[in-house]
Amino acid sequence: MSINTFGHLFRVTTWGESHGPALGATVDGCPPGIAIDEEMLQHWLDQRKPGQNKYTTQRREADQVRILSGVFEGQTTGTPIQLMIENTDQRSKDYGDIAEKFRPGHADITYWQKYGIRDYRGGGRSSARETAARVAAGGVARAALADLVPDLRITGYMVQMGPHAIDRARFDWDEIARNPFWVPDAQAAADWADYLDTLRKSGDSVGAMVEVTARGMPAGLGAPVYAKLDTDLATAMMSINAVKGVEIGEGMAAAMLTGSENADEITMGPEGPLYSSNHAGGILGGISTGQDVVVRFAVKPTSSILTPRKTITRSGEETEIITKGRHDPCVGIRAVPVGEAMMACVLLDQVLLHRGQVGANRGKIG
Amino acid sequence: MSINTFGHLFRVTTWGESHGPALGATVDGCPPGIAIDEEMLQHWLDQRKPGQNKYTTQRREADQVRILSGVFEGQTTGTPIQLMIENTDQRSKDYGDIAEKFRPGHADITYWQKYGIRDYRGGGRSSARETAARVAAGGVARAALADLVPDLRITGYMVQMGPHAIDRARFDWDEIARNPFWVPDAQAAADWADYLDTLRKSGDSVGAMVEVTARGMPAGLGAPVYAKLDTDLATAMMSINAVKGVEIGEGMAAAMLTGSENADEITMGPEGPLYSSNHAGGILGGISTGQDVVVRFAVKPTSSILTPRKTITRSGEETEIITKGRHDPCVGIRAVPVGEAMMACVLLDQVLLHRGQVGANRGKIG
Amino acid sequence: MSINTFGHLFRVTTWGESHGPALGATVDGCPPGIAIDEEMLQHWLDQRKPGQNKYTTQRREADQVRILSGVFEGQTTGTPIQLMIENTDQRSKDYGDIAEKFRPGHADITYWQKYGIRDYRGGGRSSARETAARVAAGGVARAALADLVPDLRITGYMVQMGPHAIDRARFDWDEIARNPFWVPDAQAAADWADYLDTLRKSGDSVGAMVEVTARGMPAGLGAPVYAKLDTDLATAMMSINAVKGVEIGEGMAAAMLTGSENADEITMGPEGPLYSSNHAGGILGGISTGQDVVVRFAVKPTSSILTPRKTITRSGEETEIITKGRHDPCVGIRAVPVGEAMMACVLLDQVLLHRGQVGANRGKIG
Amino acid sequence: MSINTFGHLFRVTTWGESHGPALGATVDGCPPGIAIDEEMLQHWLDQRKPGQNKYTTQRREADQVRILSGVFEGQTTGTPIQLMIENTDQRSKDYGDIAEKFRPGHADITYWQKYGIRDYRGGGRSSARETAARVAAGGVARAALADLVPDLRITGYMVQMGPHAIDRARFDWDEIARNPFWVPDAQAAADWADYLDTLRKSGDSVGAMVEVTARGMPAGLGAPVYAKLDTDLATAMMSINAVKGVEIGEGMAAAMLTGSENADEITMGPEGPLYSSNHAGGILGGISTGQDVVVRFAVKPTSSILTPRKTITRSGEETEIITKGRHDPCVGIRAVPVGEAMMACVLLDQVLLHRGQVGANRGKIG
Repeated sequence: MSINTFGHLFRVTTWGESHGPALGATVDGCPPGIAIDEEMLQHWLDQRKPGQNKYTTQRREADQVRILSGVFEGQTTGTPIQLMIENTDQRSKDYGDIAEKFRPGHADITYWQKYGIRDYRGGGRSSARETAARVAAGGVARAALADLVPDLRITGYMVQMGPHAIDRARFDWDEIARNPFWVPDAQAAADWADYLDTLRKSGDSVGAMVEVTARGMPAGLGAPVYAKLDTDLATAMMSINAVKGVEIGEGMAAAMLTGSENADEITMGPEGPLYSSNHAGGILGGISTGQDVVVRFAVKPTSSILTPRKTITRSGEETEIITKGRHDPCVGIRAVPVGEAMMACVLLDQVLLHRGQVGANRGKIG
Repeated sequence: MSINTFGHLFRVTTWGESHGPALGATVDGCPPGIAIDEEMLQHWLDQRKPGQNKYTTQRREADQVRILSGVFEGQTTGTPIQLMIENTDQRSKDYGDIAEKFRPGHADITYWQKYGIRDYRGGGRSSARETAARVAAGGVARAALADLVPDLRITGYMVQMGPHAIDRARFDWDEIARNPFWVPDAQAAADWADYLDTLRKSGDSVGAMVEVTARGMPAGLGAPVYAKLDTDLATAMMSINAVKGVEIGEGMAAAMLTGSENADEITMGPEGPLYSSNHAGGILGGISTGQDVVVRFAVKPTSSILTPRKTITRSGEETEIITKGRHDPCVGIRAVPVGEAMMACVLLDQVLLHRGQVGANRGKIG
Repeated sequence: MSINTFGHLFRVTTWGESHGPALGATVDGCPPGIAIDEEMLQHWLDQRKPGQNKYTTQRREADQVRILSGVFEGQTTGTPIQLMIENTDQRSKDYGDIAEKFRPGHADITYWQKYGIRDYRGGGRSSARETAARVAAGGVARAALADLVPDLRITGYMVQMGPHAIDRARFDWDEIARNPFWVPDAQAAADWADYLDTLRKSGDSVGAMVEVTARGMPAGLGAPVYAKLDTDLATAMMSINAVKGVEIGEGMAAAMLTGSENADEITMGPEGPLYSSNHAGGILGGISTGQDVVVRFAVKPTSSILTPRKTITRSGEETEIITKGRHDPCVGIRAVPVGEAMMACVLLDQVLLHRGQVGANRGKIG
Repeated sequence: MSINTFGHLFRVTTWGESHGPALGATVDGCPPGIAIDEEMLQHWLDQRKPGQNKYTTQRREADQVRILSGVFEGQTTGTPIQLMIENTDQRSKDYGDIAEKFRPGHADITYWQKYGIRDYRGGGRSSARETAARVAAGGVARAALADLVPDLRITGYMVQMGPHAIDRARFDWDEIARNPFWVPDAQAAADWADYLDTLRKSGDSVGAMVEVTARGMPAGLGAPVYAKLDTDLATAMMSINAVKGVEIGEGMAAAMLTGSENADEITMGPEGPLYSSNHAGGILGGISTGQDVVVRFAVKPTSSILTPRKTITRSGEETEIITKGRHDPCVGIRAVPVGEAMMACVLLDQVLLHRGQVGANRGKIG
């Protein structure tokens, strides 16, 4: 039973509310002897940090991570790693209507209906701020993966923002880090800047689609039938705030293909099997083939917008609400590093799980 | 750690290979005092059973379920329920090439790469036959839900087959049981019959999209942040064979909407909150709102087709393969009862989990 | 959450009631490529089988185990292994009073109070018969251990029966298999035979203490702080029917020692550390030292005796009960193979867990 | 898989090392709406705090607990509760030999052999200081139990210290809080003071036996066969540092009894079943009877003593070690509040688990 824990052997428990004293992640099961320090984790957190450009919320959060346990003289010891991020901006303030009025599209109403009590300040536990803890934990996973699967590269990027998709013909891995949208298409980056600027000024928000690719994958990761690699990725991505769909490889579009179009043919390369295409997204029967693993997820537009919306109060009265404050016009942007972090956690977990049950890749081809 | 187990409190472990002596499900955590018998479970299994019409595989499987434990005098006792389905058609036969050649699009190659050994007969553990065990377990979940949430209705149906989508304007709940495709649109049923007939004769196959809706939902189900209702549904559906994508409510299309389009406004009805729309698919922040829960998943076309495909052998030689045999032109059809079963398991599990942690719905509105 | 499942990576779920159609174990997480067949498992089951001599119940159970999944061409495949033992002696019979009267010392009353329904035939789920499933699963664990830790030897034996303890000065490993009590002291075997004969004729029963030793242990097994080796052994042994206490090494007697008496001094041997003594029972801080692991557990006397006992009925009336039938005068005897099986499961599980998290023993000495 | 997590629904993950920045417990699954504050938890921590009298280590630890999440306006919200205790006394100091020499009886050598790295300062993760986190988590469990099972009283006390046992004829519940040993026998308290004083001056240490009793128990708690109440208690107690044995009711002594001596007869009282005795320790078949639950555990003498002991260094050289420093002559004393805390965690967990699976006690008698 794992309400707030994710993973089989590499287990991440996130804790904390948006405006409580702190939030963080308890990371259990990390291999010993992995070099880790706060700077290394901070690097990933800074990518997700808000207020970096005009396209993300202007709220200033230091997001300074501290390692409270499990690391000794710069190395993991195999004991639980506690990662804490203090909430620096907790000053008493007016939370306005949200203590009483439920914001449409937010978890305000369901937390209330479930628990009968909720920390309404800034969304409490349901805030996107919870994902900072995931990014910190993902940093630990990345460090361990660097040791165990040195060729692995995990890269997240945006492929759609509202009506605007990237052009795969212009796909450029190097472009991703060059623009504020993590988009691998320079033209799209320019177009999206204009689009988002207009949207932001109008007080509206927009959805996004994020793709995360793992290159340099070993074959054999994934544990059928309920810890399949694709299942674990779906679990990981769907658990991120505001995500409404997850797909692997061809994804939802696989419904529209015929068998002769969809199956990837196999030939023999110098170092193992080669595939004519990657409709499978690098996963067959829940186990990695060695091709790139490709997962996509859709992030809904934030519901915190300046347009007045109909809603009700806790006492059942009908009213309207405007969600003021410093919100991201496209939360999908900041979901990119979160998606990468979740991919890293899933892959490390599967590496450990495979090593535990199977020991080493046993099936040789050729 | 749960390689072959699914669920938090209502835990289903499936076991068995396609052509081994038997397969089944070990169901743990079912409440005591629930009326269950083999006939009741058989009813659901018969829906999934192949060979019922020309659109599903002509292989004849009795799929007769036996209850080996956990039920006494027609009622569950709270102890593990063992459900066994014997494989009647295990006669020694020629498995042809598949012991040596990997079928493209199948898990043959990845099981080999992971484990170094595999039961290749009929796909072994990776066969769609494993889903029979899920349907049996889902029957137990349905019986318990009938007791605990009597208004709940779970209905699965197809919304897309290859290029052909249903027309939502013609949606008719009653139509679903009348046609072999579980499609809620009589016109689509007629069109699809022709399409699939042509496809079947050509030896090709096609993908499909299945939607499962839960009506009569209580609010408050789902346990953030890693046992959210939408996360558990994604886990459940993605773990089904051949599924490549899962979405909730607006799903992947949420990426294309603005905030003003997407958030469902709230008003007060006589029995609680009402929503202007259901973009959320009945789930906010991972917790049910009380609206219909709507999940969709894409099933890829089966890779067992009559067209010769390039592949390699275990010893690394390049070759071709034709997958003969009695295969479903559209495996998505038989995925409908499986999707329903998974929905039932997830919802019962969340009902028990909520009851365990929270006790009873505590947050009242109005 | 694991109501009927035991283990972290090597996971055993037992299912079944004493007089239902069958009982068994679903074994998940076993490494692939382990040679296993039904005969091998039957060997261990036959050791536990009742009716072998006059000191165990005369009930005849075939206890024939069948492997229903997870093994292909004589080897494990890495998928779940289903082990089934059919209950051959299910004929409709008179269960006498036990449907209505609660037997003192039995779980009759608590199963009723918990679940409101119980399979009262032969104790149902609470019957010692459940341990047959553990012995079968233990056989799988032993086979995997033979592959992974070839020097390991697990041996269970009795060290106390009622007032009679063994004399450690006469301890002889070879004697254990020569007498019906699994006692490593030939003199004790002779004495106990007389004692038990008298007791059996009087219709009474007696408790016992079982010790299980693992020799040839690797250092480094055990995962602090909640999956320590001693914790897992305590969990394993205490979960066996009728067990009331578990101790490691010096055990409860450690309460009576001083620090200068208790700590085992360390010297350096040719192959690693040597210890002056083994008060620790081979475990320090929850991790194996490489010394013999020694665990003991107490089995209470069976409460099914011929003396009339005061009790109540389900409707609350006071009455008396005599438990007729074919019962073991000392159930502790048959607990010996069960204790061995549980030790095997725990050790395999810890080997896999260590391999998963740590990879290989990393800390060298000297 | 739960290396550092304990519990099924009420899940406690402890983290932290003796001399790291902080240690604590991540508590997941606590019901919402429970009144909790730091003072309440501090009360229990202060009981365990060292340096309170001359019989416990003179090390000064503030052991100040902070609640970082999961509590809003004085009530639990149903989200994870993070409890942090900063290590105030982390000043750089000379750890002497223990970085190189393994202390006999300590986990130094096994942590090294397992992980190849260890935080040797003050025992690191294997320090008794880890139990402070358990006591804090136990405080949360107690608060929830006060709400859910108001009649329940959990009391721990010492029953043996080295050669000295209490006299049950003098047992006095009120005496427990009056002496520094938590011993329910005033005469023993006086005698033990002298004994321990002598021992402390000689630089030696001594073992102890702790008993924890739960009075006011509901019947029906415990989930056979692997989450039995006695199994969970054994797991809980054996996971505490230095514990070498656990027993329920008659415990190890049950091995010496006959069936006619051991089984507790049942009569009918005005409010339910009554028992003639409590050999069972309040548990039958792993489920509570409603009698007092009685568990005992043995704590070995601390191995940190002033007598020189033979040992080896990390490089395999033979040497001697004296463990100086401020150590408890009888660590068992401070284990009393830890045992209480573990009992509280187990009972709350079982209450929630029962509520989840069964709903409410269903089997009525009379």
